[in-house]
Amino acid sequence: MSKNFLVETTSVDSSARAGLIETPHGPIPTPAFAPVASQGSVKGLTHDQVAALGAKLILCNSYHLFLRPGAEAIRAMGGLHQFISWTKPILTDSGGFQIYSLAPLAKVRRDGVAFASHLDGSKLFLTPEDVLDIQLKLGSDIMMVLDHFVPFPSTAEKVREAVETTIRWAGRAREAFRNRETGAHLWGITQGGVDPDLRRRSTEELVTLDFDGYALGGLGIGEAKTQLHDVLEKSDSLLPKNKPRYLMGMGYLADILEAVERGVDMFDCVLPTRNARNGSLFTRQGVVTIKNKKYADDLRPLDEACACYTCRHFSRAYLRHLHERKEITAAVLNTIHNLHFYLDFFTEMRQAIQSQSFQRFKLNLMNTLKEVNR
Amino acid sequence: MSKNFLVETTSVDSSARAGLIETPHGPIPTPAFAPVASQGSVKGLTHDQVAALGAKLILCNSYHLFLRPGAEAIRAMGGLHQFISWTKPILTDSGGFQIYSLAPLAKVRRDGVAFASHLDGSKLFLTPEDVLDIQLKLGSDIMMVLDHFVPFPSTAEKVREAVETTIRWAGRAREAFRNRETGAHLWGITQGGVDPDLRRRSTEELVTLDFDGYALGGLGIGEAKTQLHDVLEKSDSLLPKNKPRYLMGMGYLADILEAVERGVDMFDCVLPTRNARNGSLFTRQGVVTIKNKKYADDLRPLDEACACYTCRHFSRAYLRHLHERKEITAAVLNTIHNLHFYLDFFTEMRQAIQSQSFQRFKLNLMNTLKEVNR
Repeated sequence: MSKNFLVETTSVDSSARAGLIETPHGPIPTPAFAPVASQGSVKGLTHDQVAALGAKLILCNSYHLFLRPGAEAIRAMGGLHQFISWTKPILTDSGGFQIYSLAPLAKVRRDGVAFASHLDGSKLFLTPEDVLDIQLKLGSDIMMVLDHFVPFPSTAEKVREAVETTIRWAGRAREAFRNRETGAHLWGITQGGVDPDLRRRSTEELVTLDFDGYALGGLGIGEAKTQLHDVLEKSDSLLPKNKPRYLMGMGYLADILEAVERGVDMFDCVLPTRNARNGSLFTRQGVVTIKNKKYADDLRPLDEACACYTCRHFSRAYLRHLHERKEITAAVLNTIHNLHFYLDFFTEMRQAIQSQSFQRFKLNLMNTLKEVNR
Repeated sequence: MSKNFLVETTSVDSSARAGLIETPHGPIPTPAFAPVASQGSVKGLTHDQVAALGAKLILCNSYHLFLRPGAEAIRAMGGLHQFISWTKPILTDSGGFQIYSLAPLAKVRRDGVAFASHLDGSKLFLTPEDVLDIQLKLGSDIMMVLDHFVPFPSTAEKVREAVETTIRWAGRAREAFRNRETGAHLWGITQGGVDPDLRRRSTEELVTLDFDGYALGGLGIGEAKTQLHDVLEKSDSLLPKNKPRYLMGMGYLADILEAVERGVDMFDCVLPTRNARNGSLFTRQGVVTIKNKKYADDLRPLDEACACYTCRHFSRAYLRHLHERKEITAAVLNTIHNLHFYLDFFTEMRQAIQSQSFQRFKLNLMNTLKEVNR
């Protein structure tokens, strides 16, 4: 099975590119956005709705699924695709981010990470090989290596340590995967914070390991935008052009545009879905905070130009009413809208790249969407 | 606009009948089941999903909508159909049940009911004319008169009082509607508990008022099944055959079968939708309590014979996982299944009546569905 990444078009005036990632469950057109389905469902939606919105892949959380129902249990049921009945590509994270952020007392040792389950406090220890094994059992299409993640800001010493641990673990995961090669992707994660030398070292070492794709880790956690952009540019120059790049967890459209301009191909974020549940709804005219009293008798759709089910049928007044009444259907209708907005944005961005009009697309959006992004 | 109720078929060996209720928003084939959409949405589903499941009408709660966003606000937005974008028939209750059960200090006076809002304690007073006015503002297809509801058991004196109040109020509502006649239905509600004489008096008096349909009130609140059946039979003999009958809030399939056999045409209940959210799922083999550990690796659908979206795609193991993780999508998928089960049951029951095989249909179900009903 091919694990090719085909770059179809590269912008003449930036590093933005349109491509196609081949996976065992079909191709993913890039730039791509993965809706988050932590536990195997995009909260509030059926898979049919998610697919109809144009999602080409979803992200599931290894950490959560490893704890419950368990990787082995899922393997025994035929793998994650079978278990959750999703037929398109699945991306799984390494679980590292959840371990460092959710699990108490996470402690990085030479061979892996020790932590206590956030559910029952039981003590667990995962090596890079374990994390690969979990994702192989899940049968995901794109697997991520275990990395060592440190907060921003951290001392140079801490960042250096994270870089070295990440390189070591990446090598071990890559080696383990060599012996268990499947059609699925294994992607490396670079670290190094915003330190150019450390980021360079991390990236160069990971490139020599020849992963199927590369995530840029340790970003979007408080660094300045200029620092972020510097890292993106440095990474763009160091990473092979023929491998997809992934900016994990970053979801503001302005950030996505800046990243795509600097050669990033893939994104995931809870932003559209979580904000939908909180009643924060994206439109081409800015964010609609639906609980606002002024929408109580507003008979317009969220966005006149939007073709989603929610906008074609329902008024802001009704959506506000459902949100204020805490009706489950509010989460459903709002999620449909926000996800449509995001996936539409990605489709249009891809078309803009293909027609060599990415810069105009970006400029238009940056001007009109200021409100949307903050 | 015709408000006819067309009885298409009456069983040769029982009072079960198949019919068609004409409303301003289209016909309702009977026996009919109204999914509950208290606030204007069937919790967890989009209207498209509800309609695709075969629902021909929904029930909205006057009390809740009267409090928020308010009947006048809804009228100003074009009425309830327009406000919630539901194009099929809407049945609204009188709000009486909510007033007596949710609102503290409800006190029946000669001219109406005084109560305090369960939301902010504000003091409210509604006359039968007010309750009609609220529903006219909502623009519902089938409106219910304000009745006086007493718990079971109540003293004969209390029940008698409720009967007299209900008759008086029904007369006032009927009179008010005469002056504001629309194509919508106004249905009366009989009271009298399980006392044959009081039920007779209530029914006869309401029949003289010539409502478009009749609900049997004050039932399903603790009386014995034999008592319930006696009231149904007595009512069947007293109510005009050419008007639809409605057993409010009663949702167990066994009760529905007994009621249909005794000439009842319409039902509403939160049972399929509320139980779905609680993980109690109806199947032809009995209730599946999805949280049960034994379903953790059960790859079968909820019901092999079920054609709903949930059963066509998902395993019990996945549904249990989503339910245990408290994923919103669990409520969605479970509600789709339970509502499909109910609406399918009604479709089959109607066909059985039309083909003069209702008794066999009932017997089969009573034998195989014992588990489903309790």
